[in-house]
Amino acid sequence: MASAEERLMEWLRDAHAMEQQAETMLSTMAGRIELYPELRERIELHLEQTRTQASMIESCIQRRGGDTSSLKDLAGKLMATGQGFGGIFMSDEIIKSAMASYTFEQMEMASYRVLIATSDHVGDAETSAICARILREEEEMAAWIWEYLPKVTRQYLAREEAPGLDAQT
Amino acid sequence: MASAEERLMEWLRDAHAMEQQAETMLSTMAGRIELYPELRERIELHLEQTRTQASMIESCIQRRGGDTSSLKDLAGKLMATGQGFGGIFMSDEIIKSAMASYTFEQMEMASYRVLIATSDHVGDAETSAICARILREEEEMAAWIWEYLPKVTRQYLAREEAPGLDAQT
Repeated sequence: MASAEERLMEWLRDAHAMEQQAETMLSTMAGRIELYPELRERIELHLEQTRTQASMIESCIQRRGGDTSSLKDLAGKLMATGQGFGGIFMSDEIIKSAMASYTFEQMEMASYRVLIATSDHVGDAETSAICARILREEEEMAAWIWEYLPKVTRQYLAREEAPGLDAQT
Repeated sequence: MASAEERLMEWLRDAHAMEQQAETMLSTMAGRIELYPELRERIELHLEQTRTQASMIESCIQRRGGDTSSLKDLAGKLMATGQGFGGIFMSDEIIKSAMASYTFEQMEMASYRVLIATSDHVGDAETSAICARILREEEEMAAWIWEYLPKVTRQYLAREEAPGLDAQT
């Protein structure tokens, strides 16, 4: 049986690992996308936000008295595994990447919704406010990709059908 | 280079596999949840919808002249792997399960959004309408879990803190 405070610490650590995974994934995607500049630019913007989010979560862990030394190790491990989601080098990679980014944002949103309820439960208003701020950024990114999905699908299908045009990324 | 028609067939097959995976996951969850009847009931409702969705996608594949014999094999393989997402038997399983269900619904939503754009691109109005109908059901399920997340978090934390109460599932 863990106390709510212990759960909050555990889930903050999960969130930090998730942001590190997001950074790896977004950074790989941004480096590979050439033909879809709109998506690359939005990903680069969110990559910066993601780095700040990881620092904000780390500050919550520190403020609550948690050890942050082990957080660095995980970052190293994740970078070592390399490709992240973007490593699925299929011919429809751009569509799968857009879908994966959307899904990942939604997973992050669910995590922050749980973290907000948990912070409120233990009366940690600052962690709750930080998680609410991050949640808004994730929601904006998810909403952007949702609007972009039909558009990139049409662009991709049209490029695939045009002789001599590359469509992959 | 695949034609848009070939992509549509490929992505319909992906969608069918996804619905089968959803069925495995939801069925495992429904069978394990005892302490959170609201979630179990909503999952059971969506499990029925998911079975119908798989049939509807199969009908699209058939109508477009695709082979559906290999679809059954995949169902068998997925069932054999057993647990699905629900198999993460951690002490905070109910929270992780709720988050995983939400994320899975969002992944499905992204897939159907791509499928609708693809069906429209090739002029298959019936597949587009079926995908739009399924998308609405996925959106309803996702919205339900989104509203439920803070509530189940509070219930779970309270149960964990209460002496002698089980909280896991």
